Amino acid sequence: MAKADFAGVLVPAITPFDAGLEPDAPLFLKTCRWLLGQGANGLAVFGTTSEANSLSLGERRALLEGLVAGGLDPSLLLPGTGLPALPDTVELTRHAVSLGCGGVLMLPPFYYKPVSSDGLFAFYAEVIERVGSSDLGLWLYHIPQMTGVGISHDLIERLIKRYPQTVLGIKDSSGDWANTEAMLAHFPGFRIFPSSEGVLLKALRLGAAGCITASGNVNAAAIRRLFDHWTSPEAEALQKPVAAVRDAVSGYPLIPAVKAVLATLLAEPGLSTLRPPLTPLTEAQATELMGKLQAAGHALAPGRAG
Amino acid sequence: MAKADFAGVLVPAITPFDAGLEPDAPLFLKTCRWLLGQGANGLAVFGTTSEANSLSLGERRALLEGLVAGGLDPSLLLPGTGLPALPDTVELTRHAVSLGCGGVLMLPPFYYKPVSSDGLFAFYAEVIERVGSSDLGLWLYHIPQMTGVGISHDLIERLIKRYPQTVLGIKDSSGDWANTEAMLAHFPGFRIFPSSEGVLLKALRLGAAGCITASGNVNAAAIRRLFDHWTSPEAEALQKPVAAVRDAVSGYPLIPAVKAVLATLLAEPGLSTLRPPLTPLTEAQATELMGKLQAAGHALAPGRAG
Repeated sequence: MAKADFAGVLVPAITPFDAGLEPDAPLFLKTCRWLLGQGANGLAVFGTTSEANSLSLGERRALLEGLVAGGLDPSLLLPGTGLPALPDTVELTRHAVSLGCGGVLMLPPFYYKPVSSDGLFAFYAEVIERVGSSDLGLWLYHIPQMTGVGISHDLIERLIKRYPQTVLGIKDSSGDWANTEAMLAHFPGFRIFPSSEGVLLKALRLGAAGCITASGNVNAAAIRRLFDHWTSPEAEALQKPVAAVRDAVSGYPLIPAVKAVLATLLAEPGLSTLRPPLTPLTEAQATELMGKLQAAGHALAPGRAG
Repeated sequence: MAKADFAGVLVPAITPFDAGLEPDAPLFLKTCRWLLGQGANGLAVFGTTSEANSLSLGERRALLEGLVAGGLDPSLLLPGTGLPALPDTVELTRHAVSLGCGGVLMLPPFYYKPVSSDGLFAFYAEVIERVGSSDLGLWLYHIPQMTGVGISHDLIERLIKRYPQTVLGIKDSSGDWANTEAMLAHFPGFRIFPSSEGVLLKALRLGAAGCITASGNVNAAAIRRLFDHWTSPEAEALQKPVAAVRDAVSGYPLIPAVKAVLATLLAEPGLSTLRPPLTPLTEAQATELMGKLQAAGHALAPGRAG
């Protein structure tokens, strides 16, 4: 019974690469531990920000095994397992379940388009049936600007009706607040995570479960503080600086920006390395970003949770 | 020295699946043999029409090995090997080269967007360097409606300047004639294949190498006849019915349509099976399509090459 009821601040932890562009497993473990220490409620490893789709299946498996072997509680992990090919998605999902992961965050198959709602339902259903485990907690991943394939409300409805114990929530990375709001209204009890802490407070007030956010890599402590105190009178005052940091980071290509800041925070210059086709910020961009973060009130030092 | 100078009618052979949705290797071999017998000049296996992105790496490797073990001349094969992750693309490309394939057709990494021309160049360059073989013939694959990541003229220019013996041509599946025309004008000697036989004659007249076309699966003999006689007085008369068949098929979702027709032509009903997220034509659609093909002059029986 590893299936977790995720809530709060989930971070799509970045994946470190060494100078030869190979995944750096010890540094990945260190980064993940640090993020949990900062207050992340869970880690959505192998998300978009993690450059998951620049990793082979074998690399993902080895990195995940490294986290668990390194002592991380697998129930805090929500690895991405969705790929265009059914057997790949099944393999990664089975592997995550076998390690006791709290859940999996599953992209739709993202090559063919357009695809019908029937086709997407058939894909998810086939994965669930083949994995065939009551320990599977499946969280949908809606990020149409990358996939070109959205998760419609019709599809959500069909999936949670057919697999109510398995399909538990969704990460809405569309950046389309109207969509987040409509989902919150239509699917009470379904755990909905917007992808930006900039809307965390208003989302929580409408019933969201938290947020799964790229910039959680660099500001988890403050976002967690907001989450923990969202019903208190100080909530608005906590939301404002959190949104300012998010705004500063999102003025740049998000993944290279997050990696550049983390490299500073952890004093690990190698963290700013990306695998092609992604490219790092220029030095000028990185310097400018650090300035903007300081102006937004970020100390450029690890924060304190609580 | 397996590297081939592809020209003519290349077919992205469909991939058959059995009732359990597993690849059917014997039927794949049979289909590929049949297509070559129909007159295909080469087979771009594991293209979009082949549902390549619904296959695992292991499945692609096994299917390709099955073709070669079954006696197909590997120099006629141009397998798709491009995937979002660098190590996967390297693995499949190395494998194709090791089997003596005439070339590989390489999608750009298609998850992250936007990506820069620098990032795409770095990706292709890293693949070429890691494979490190003078036997590698690399053909670019431009299909932005699926990938969301295009192959710009700037990228082509940089790649053929840096790797003139390796980067040999492109499949332009954009359906954007202005782009095909501009590439033909800007890159003389570069082998350019539009993705529709509907424009074959006018493309050949501007210097195209041929076409790589989904509907080649169902009309290879007639398209080959057009290619073989394109400088003759009868060329226009050959182009017209070929375009009519293409038009009939493209009135439907292309991959299910091609599979439905092939199931009829080869008397193999299983050929119409698709892996999710793709779904087959309805029976009514299939019947209607067969009628339109007959109206377009297709005999719904194997054609004769020559």
